[in-house]
Amino acid sequence: MRVRLDVAYDGTDFSGWAAQPGRRTVAGVLLDALTTVTEPTGLTVAGRTDAGVHAAGQVAHVDVPDAAWAALGPTLVRRLAGLLPGDVRVRAATAVPDTFDARFSATFRRYEYRVTDAPYGADPVRRRDTLAWPRPLDRAALDAAAAGLVGEHDYAAYCRRKENGTTVREVTRLDWRRDLDGVLVATVQADAFCQQMVRSLVGAMLAAGDGRRPPDWPARQLTLRERSSEVTVAPAHGLSLVAVGYPADPAAYAARAEVTRNLRAPR
Amino acid sequence: MRVRLDVAYDGTDFSGWAAQPGRRTVAGVLLDALTTVTEPTGLTVAGRTDAGVHAAGQVAHVDVPDAAWAALGPTLVRRLAGLLPGDVRVRAATAVPDTFDARFSATFRRYEYRVTDAPYGADPVRRRDTLAWPRPLDRAALDAAAAGLVGEHDYAAYCRRKENGTTVREVTRLDWRRDLDGVLVATVQADAFCQQMVRSLVGAMLAAGDGRRPPDWPARQLTLRERSSEVTVAPAHGLSLVAVGYPADPAAYAARAEVTRNLRAPR
Repeated sequence: MRVRLDVAYDGTDFSGWAAQPGRRTVAGVLLDALTTVTEPTGLTVAGRTDAGVHAAGQVAHVDVPDAAWAALGPTLVRRLAGLLPGDVRVRAATAVPDTFDARFSATFRRYEYRVTDAPYGADPVRRRDTLAWPRPLDRAALDAAAAGLVGEHDYAAYCRRKENGTTVREVTRLDWRRDLDGVLVATVQADAFCQQMVRSLVGAMLAAGDGRRPPDWPARQLTLRERSSEVTVAPAHGLSLVAVGYPADPAAYAARAEVTRNLRAPR
Repeated sequence: MRVRLDVAYDGTDFSGWAAQPGRRTVAGVLLDALTTVTEPTGLTVAGRTDAGVHAAGQVAHVDVPDAAWAALGPTLVRRLAGLLPGDVRVRAATAVPDTFDARFSATFRRYEYRVTDAPYGADPVRRRDTLAWPRPLDRAALDAAAAGLVGEHDYAAYCRRKENGTTVREVTRLDWRRDLDGVLVATVQADAFCQQMVRSLVGAMLAAGDGRRPPDWPARQLTLRERSSEVTVAPAHGLSLVAVGYPADPAAYAARAEVTRNLRAPR
């Protein structure tokens, strides 16, 4: 039985998602808890978040024996709540068709980046997921920078390294809002991202936002065919994976997975 | 020169507000930072929060030499941001009349208590200021319990101990809302509170909210003339001091202080 897991975590004390020997990772902690109650195989995630990055809407899938699911299904979320540490939560566990693949069936990933330019810094209870920026940020400059980065482009300048696959991505949404508490929040959505891409886009927009670069500077980096040495990667702790999208019709899971497998290796 | 300080903190790693030898307290950390830049005297706070309780809108006052204020005033917030640890922030520092007393001039204190009844527990990035309640909470029962506790009453049942003063208080606001993320938030406002009063009120309302007590049970405790042994004090980490009110007209600071000094020792 394939089970979809909707997962949230505070990335502060994790060396990212992916299991690594000797490191505390989200996948490692989650597998430990799952192993206590069943025999999980093939834990697969939509977005392999880096060390320090948070998630409110991460999605993974795992296979468990049919009998275990029949016994566990209705109580799995509560049982995992008792087994997991407070910095990881499984918000939902749902039986899905075998064709559902958390990584390859996904149609989009949506991230948010929180940054405050308040002179006093970040609100203490949100300091783990909010970047304190030491200079005032101009909303119009941030908006102009964002407008120049949205669309389908080769984001080589914003990718950690050009791996085997393409660095062409379609950023379907990139905008800023200012919340009631004054925090600026960037929303970035794409079919998929290459490594450190969101943090690199945010880093470039912040340089425009505080006036060190002109507002069209981030877009001009898109002409580069390799990583830009002038783009600063924004710190991990402001970033959260907030949502992953899938086809509304489960019959489309397999076809979507086929498309993305052929296109590139999405993250 | 008297200076009003608007202060926010994450109470997790503090033994409360009040300076105590050998303990890490908010007042202690704040005085250390202030002493680095000036000679502060008479740090006085509106709400002496207990260990583990947070604040978004705490107010304090402190006296500093006139010359120091003239030199420091415009940059004090930024300087303190660099000197203070991330779990305390001074959001504003404002010159006020000598008649302003953060404790005695206050007209109200407003607290919020965050609790979730989601089966998976508290959102990881908010787990430090959100109580995870293991049973479903009925909003109608919470509302009925709150309605029975608002007003001017002798809250002896909800006070840690009847000290020298009266335990009569006027609770001007007590209501629940459910935020977009599903978290239940109680707002409690009064002229002043006795020790552990907000957490005791919340503890009684939660007992009604999850059905262990009838909705009118919290109000029935108000007939007691001493601490109720049946009321459970809700954990500190769900509680935040969100606002302190003062007379709109600074000319009224002294008169208000005179009234409250004569009435009781407010917290």
